[in-house]
Amino acid sequence: MPRGCFVTVEGTEGVGKTTNLDFVQQTLESAGLEVLRTREPGGTPLAEDIRTLLLTPRAEPVADLTELLLMFAARAQHLEQVIKPALAAGKWVLCDRFTDATYAYQGGGRGMDTAQIQVLENLVQDGLQPDLTLLLDLPVSVGLERARARSAPDRFESEKSRFFEAVRQHYLQRAAADPGRFAVIDAAPALPDVQQQISQALLRVLEVPA
Amino acid sequence: MPRGCFVTVEGTEGVGKTTNLDFVQQTLESAGLEVLRTREPGGTPLAEDIRTLLLTPRAEPVADLTELLLMFAARAQHLEQVIKPALAAGKWVLCDRFTDATYAYQGGGRGMDTAQIQVLENLVQDGLQPDLTLLLDLPVSVGLERARARSAPDRFESEKSRFFEAVRQHYLQRAAADPGRFAVIDAAPALPDVQQQISQALLRVLEVPA
Repeated sequence: MPRGCFVTVEGTEGVGKTTNLDFVQQTLESAGLEVLRTREPGGTPLAEDIRTLLLTPRAEPVADLTELLLMFAARAQHLEQVIKPALAAGKWVLCDRFTDATYAYQGGGRGMDTAQIQVLENLVQDGLQPDLTLLLDLPVSVGLERARARSAPDRFESEKSRFFEAVRQHYLQRAAADPGRFAVIDAAPALPDVQQQISQALLRVLEVPA
Repeated sequence: MPRGCFVTVEGTEGVGKTTNLDFVQQTLESAGLEVLRTREPGGTPLAEDIRTLLLTPRAEPVADLTELLLMFAARAQHLEQVIKPALAAGKWVLCDRFTDATYAYQGGGRGMDTAQIQVLENLVQDGLQPDLTLLLDLPVSVGLERARARSAPDRFESEKSRFFEAVRQHYLQRAAADPGRFAVIDAAPALPDVQQQISQALLRVLEVPA
């Protein structure tokens, strides 16, 4: 059985990830593929418990390295229990955020040493990378306005605009450094235009026999 | 202000860790030292939440690497919030288990690659090691009998004797490889004899000006 493809969707707050994840899922399923949709941090009961630890505001300051290790603990569990078995069974895995988000948020946003992130990426992924990463890109001011209209801020969303600008720039740098894996989608225009770009990007993995 | 000393107490189930931690604390306090007593995994509210994730039995299999990353996430938080500030303030830190337990339980017991543990130890501790590690040693059969008389087994305690034998041997190998840091205490004799050995071992750190 051919291995499935691993597709991730990334972006800062308010870029339209959920709407466009729905669109990617429908597109892949229309092509006759079996899609497993999941998210990070999370994707298994234990990984979701770790996500809750990460996102719940608390009085105790959370050390940067603690946050990073919890992220990768959730990721290790998600890979072992969900992502790798699904890919091996020929399913396509569609994941809302993955390690690029760790680089962008913890590295770009919080200024953590990306060499530390790399140590953990090597340990946990052992070379496994997404086949395609859709980076939904939008000016930070537009994205935050959309996100704030939608829901109450969690611990990460309540950070400042400067933080999100650093996250966005880090995402764009990573995309520029690995154009074979990344497709940068301009999320500013009207939805049909955005989805036209996404359809085009999906052809990269749909046209190659898995 | 002179930095405090970092003393850890290690051993398999039923070796008498709690009783002897009490004794170590009293001995140090009688010498006029300010002692911060703590434990791993745990020692801060977040690290204790991580401990609960680790020790609660669950239907989902916990991947070895997930367990290891959670252990070191708790350790990173404990070091940053509690251990390092206390040592810097001149307090002595007395900790019930530390990284030697990770090597012994996850490496020796579960057979994980100790190179992976070393990667995380380097990342999280950055060279920080206990000044003295008291290894309470006892044949596994005796220790398990004592532990079972005391309380209901948790997820780790319900493992088999062979597992604990591997843990014990791994502890002893680590002690043999680093005799300057470790003191192996024979925990089989009557308590006064055990505590005489502990008092002798504590002279190593008490006689050197901190």
